[in-house]
Amino acid sequence: VITRLEVRLPSIEPNTIDRSYLIYIDPDAGAETRLAEEVRRRAASSTIGLITDETVAGLHWPRVEAALAERGLKVVTVVVPDGESSKSLKTVEEVADRFVRGGLDRRSLVVALGGGVVGDLGGFVASVFLRGVPYVQVPTTLLAQVDSSVGGKTGVNLASGKNLVGTFHQPLCVYADLTTLSTLPARDLSSGLAEIVKHGVIADEALLLRLEERAEEARAGDPALLAELVRRSCAIKAEVVATDERELLSDAPGGGRAQLNFGHTVGHALESASAGGPAPLRHGEAVALGMIAAARVGEKLGLGDPALEARLVALLPRLGLPTDLDRRLDGPTLERVGVDKKRAGGRVAMVLVPRIGQAALSPIEPHRLGEILLGRKAR
Amino acid sequence: VITRLEVRLPSIEPNTIDRSYLIYIDPDAGAETRLAEEVRRRAASSTIGLITDETVAGLHWPRVEAALAERGLKVVTVVVPDGESSKSLKTVEEVADRFVRGGLDRRSLVVALGGGVVGDLGGFVASVFLRGVPYVQVPTTLLAQVDSSVGGKTGVNLASGKNLVGTFHQPLCVYADLTTLSTLPARDLSSGLAEIVKHGVIADEALLLRLEERAEEARAGDPALLAELVRRSCAIKAEVVATDERELLSDAPGGGRAQLNFGHTVGHALESASAGGPAPLRHGEAVALGMIAAARVGEKLGLGDPALEARLVALLPRLGLPTDLDRRLDGPTLERVGVDKKRAGGRVAMVLVPRIGQAALSPIEPHRLGEILLGRKAR
Repeated sequence: VITRLEVRLPSIEPNTIDRSYLIYIDPDAGAETRLAEEVRRRAASSTIGLITDETVAGLHWPRVEAALAERGLKVVTVVVPDGESSKSLKTVEEVADRFVRGGLDRRSLVVALGGGVVGDLGGFVASVFLRGVPYVQVPTTLLAQVDSSVGGKTGVNLASGKNLVGTFHQPLCVYADLTTLSTLPARDLSSGLAEIVKHGVIADEALLLRLEERAEEARAGDPALLAELVRRSCAIKAEVVATDERELLSDAPGGGRAQLNFGHTVGHALESASAGGPAPLRHGEAVALGMIAAARVGEKLGLGDPALEARLVALLPRLGLPTDLDRRLDGPTLERVGVDKKRAGGRVAMVLVPRIGQAALSPIEPHRLGEILLGRKAR
Repeated sequence: VITRLEVRLPSIEPNTIDRSYLIYIDPDAGAETRLAEEVRRRAASSTIGLITDETVAGLHWPRVEAALAERGLKVVTVVVPDGESSKSLKTVEEVADRFVRGGLDRRSLVVALGGGVVGDLGGFVASVFLRGVPYVQVPTTLLAQVDSSVGGKTGVNLASGKNLVGTFHQPLCVYADLTTLSTLPARDLSSGLAEIVKHGVIADEALLLRLEERAEEARAGDPALLAELVRRSCAIKAEVVATDERELLSDAPGGGRAQLNFGHTVGHALESASAGGPAPLRHGEAVALGMIAAARVGEKLGLGDPALEARLVALLPRLGLPTDLDRRLDGPTLERVGVDKKRAGGRVAMVLVPRIGQAALSPIEPHRLGEILLGRKAR
């Protein structure tokens, strides 16, 4: 049974098409034929672009490409190397050039088939190719299905940091084929579960309770449970995005879209500090540690739920996620928080959780962050 | 006396600021102080970015930077090499990286101080830096003042063609300091006059008559005349952009924003064919030749004003612009029209002028274009 969730975006400029769109959550075999049908229905040109990475090209691309070709679509596929290094302007240049040479024009659409890297890159390419063409997100990891494929944030990295160049460009639709999760490595499944925990903590205690109740089954990849978790997670993300598409309401109560950054302030710092080292953290693993950090900061400042840290520390290992924040966090890593793009006026805007199911953005002096997170370590 | 023209953009998404903006046309000495005041008034952060090129850095940057600094703004300046080669994703990466390291954040604005290359590049950087920051266009060439600085089209080039990667991103304001024209080389002044001719032909016969009446004074850079021409040109551009910001009405009568491409279909092909050769064409020179081509195609198809070609051929040399289309156009050059991004369904959408002051978009088979434009040459 396919679930259809609507991302309702506010009224639009004249001359532009409706920007609200559907997230399809399809748990059944043969999803590629239904996905291909959706793409064909939306394609204004029969020449389309497809971006994927090496792993997904081996696992899922053949059946997806065949289903698209069967419907008369000429697919210009570009396979990028796995991993964050493909989120670069150099790759954007290569992909766009291949699309021009392959015959794409302004009426063509682009399919992003893969995880978060492919989605962020593919969305960005679509947003700037010929000054913007439509695109369809086909997320193949749990992380992308519950988080990055929804909401229109696109981006690539610079030497000076992650996602520093990007756009807001909403997809035509998101098609989540949940059968792709059966081939997902355990660590990547866990990484996706971290973002589901995040959605529960900031917006829906019932979702958090569900995870606490069935953590082992989630970690083992139970299909029915995952389908339910993806649905609930996407519904939360869609609602937040609908109220603050461009992350302009950070100063409003609740923090608007910025509340989705819960766990990401310290998480991003840990992720980039570990990158290139002997034990790089997955995005969701870094977010897991970042959520613990945010819970602790909230408690110490009297602005966060005092039970949250303990609850996270109990749940995360059951989902295959790390909790060793104190071992991993040091001064130089925390320094990286300062170059985070959400910084404003020298203070760090951090998402805290006054009580579970509710989030709020609080500006925090970086030195307070150090006292709370490193002071405890030194004790 | 400063002229203020409004670019009125249609209603906007909730959560975003008003997108209508002013074009300031300032013919008087000391414009940099008034410009700096406008920037300061609009800057949400005291750290701002400034993009310029080597020539403008020598001519105008010192007084502009000093005026900005005097108002307490910290200016992070990036000087790019002169010329089209700076319109690349590689330059975008370098500029964005310098902006991050210089301390720009999401509240910072960017100033593009220069001609068309700097404006297109600067606008593109602003549109993708931290997913979009505001920017101010400060055009220092006639071409940029009457055309490229207004309307929000940004872009960089790919190996496969010009402006194939870009965005629509409207500036906060455009500040045209007309005193910059006194240092502009004669060929660049003529290049700008070509776009004024274009505006007259597609939208305002009185403007064309004015040029025909005073061509030599325009070419000599008469300040009062240039101020008048810039004003009338910007008013036309602003009106067209207001009705079709994203160039989506190409199929409507009049062609919407696409009518501004009059002379550009064949012009772009000539411009890129000549690039890197012994005698590269300036953009306006290529457009001058492209307008002659479009006039001829229109006449032959019975869709264009039959007097237009002769009128252009009489006027353009008086403005320092070329008319030797037949000598310059050959088969391989015309082939390039096929890779133009405005191509749709195998036909070339070309702007024709049924009568002077009016434009219309007509889909044309590429082989007809060859017959008309090369057949005559072969005769």
